[in-house]
Amino acid sequence: METTRIALLGLGDMGTAFARAWLAAGYPLTVWNRTAARAEPLAAAGAEVAATPAEAVAAADLVVLCLLDDASVGAVLEDAGLTGKDVVNLTTGTPAEGRARAAWAAARGARFLDAGIMAVPPMIGVPDSGAYVFYSGDRALFDAHRAALAVPAGAVYAGENAGHAALQDVALLSAMTGMFAGVSHAFALIRKEIAPKEFAPLLVGWLTAMAPYAHGMADHLESGDYTEGVTSNLAMMVKGNATLLNTAAEQGVSPELLTPFMDLMERRVADGHRDEDLTGVVGLLAR
Amino acid sequence: METTRIALLGLGDMGTAFARAWLAAGYPLTVWNRTAARAEPLAAAGAEVAATPAEAVAAADLVVLCLLDDASVGAVLEDAGLTGKDVVNLTTGTPAEGRARAAWAAARGARFLDAGIMAVPPMIGVPDSGAYVFYSGDRALFDAHRAALAVPAGAVYAGENAGHAALQDVALLSAMTGMFAGVSHAFALIRKEIAPKEFAPLLVGWLTAMAPYAHGMADHLESGDYTEGVTSNLAMMVKGNATLLNTAAEQGVSPELLTPFMDLMERRVADGHRDEDLTGVVGLLAR
Repeated sequence: METTRIALLGLGDMGTAFARAWLAAGYPLTVWNRTAARAEPLAAAGAEVAATPAEAVAAADLVVLCLLDDASVGAVLEDAGLTGKDVVNLTTGTPAEGRARAAWAAARGARFLDAGIMAVPPMIGVPDSGAYVFYSGDRALFDAHRAALAVPAGAVYAGENAGHAALQDVALLSAMTGMFAGVSHAFALIRKEIAPKEFAPLLVGWLTAMAPYAHGMADHLESGDYTEGVTSNLAMMVKGNATLLNTAAEQGVSPELLTPFMDLMERRVADGHRDEDLTGVVGLLAR
Repeated sequence: METTRIALLGLGDMGTAFARAWLAAGYPLTVWNRTAARAEPLAAAGAEVAATPAEAVAAADLVVLCLLDDASVGAVLEDAGLTGKDVVNLTTGTPAEGRARAAWAAARGARFLDAGIMAVPPMIGVPDSGAYVFYSGDRALFDAHRAALAVPAGAVYAGENAGHAALQDVALLSAMTGMFAGVSHAFALIRKEIAPKEFAPLLVGWLTAMAPYAHGMADHLESGDYTEGVTSNLAMMVKGNATLLNTAAEQGVSPELLTPFMDLMERRVADGHRDEDLTGVVGLLAR
């Protein structure tokens, strides 16, 4: 098998990390960046530097985009010949942008995968860092370039719908946002009385132990019976919320990060679902 | 050593689980409950049943309370002779309630520990379930009864300040509340397109992998420098939040569980702290 020739457009921290990983693995790599100086260290490490995006694309089989946003993808590739190319879009975007970009690429004769990166740049190219990337769209492209795609980080195929890489990426980041809202509230509660570094191992241990309850919510969403196997029901949780709010008041901490969720829990109990777990809140978020 | 004689007042699901664990371990146990029928299965398993709280207290060295709320503790023990007794309060309450109850017990000649239970009833008395209980207050009481306290669940001493068991309990539950707000939002995003049971392992894996970032926040809170070792700074996160909100809009999901935290992140960036991680939000929660 011939080695895939890769073009990488966009040399921010993430793009640069991908470039270094492919260079280290011996892939022929052409890079382009709007600010050319960002390419110099990579040139020293063995990359070809293209003067234009079209030149970079022409030199490659696999075209990888790691740009500022979806609009930049269209702008940067405007004059590039994409017919017969395989395009992988690492640029952050929404599911709808991923699907629209897949149609755009198809109209230009290219195969396309949208991607969602579950890592920060220092994790890229580091074995066992846990970094991985969702890829969705053309299955044949994924299969053809699986070895190259697996070099910077784990490669997870997320389905033919080109929006599903971004959808799962955003869903995981959204869940993490909630977790760190809770973590911030917890630190605000204890920090004046208990050393944060003494508390942090308990906090990490507790969140790690409780995260698997998400499996139960998934079971409930699929079965439609949100009361099955419930050990701590919504009515008890709502009662417990009063202690959480009273404690926040005692400690001089705003409850603003917790109350929106507590309000939905109360609404679900008021709707007659006191014996459920938290799953019913999911439906209340639908617009 | 003589075996500790235990009295347990309050036989809800949690009190009953503690009672069963002590009976199974061979501890002499007297129980009392306002609704006497709740005591019958425990009597069949070997517990003495007291007619009044005072009678239960008189029969024991170690008095354990697992009641509805803090006010119930005062009411139930009003006529009991507490002088020379060791009192452990498993009743859910706030840190201030724990401290006030410790002073109340001291005024009645008792040693006192307040407690915070990090478990649901089915985890109690089950080896390796991960269940544990924070105990704060009288260190000598904790040391004297450590063996008995360790029977139902792991026993963690949380300091002489009687409020610190409740404080750490509530802080962990608050963090978990945030995590499940995020989990609920994530399921709402994906559920119409991706099977929740296929997504759940990714979700649990991601939250488990990201929870340890709380250690970095603890380091920052103690050092006061919130920029040290930051790999994904607040300005980048705020930019990423736009993709999270746009995706929620595309998927028809209300952003109400995420926006309060995002607003604080933006406020911190607007205050000139774009190079920090999330730690600065903790201070914005102080009232």
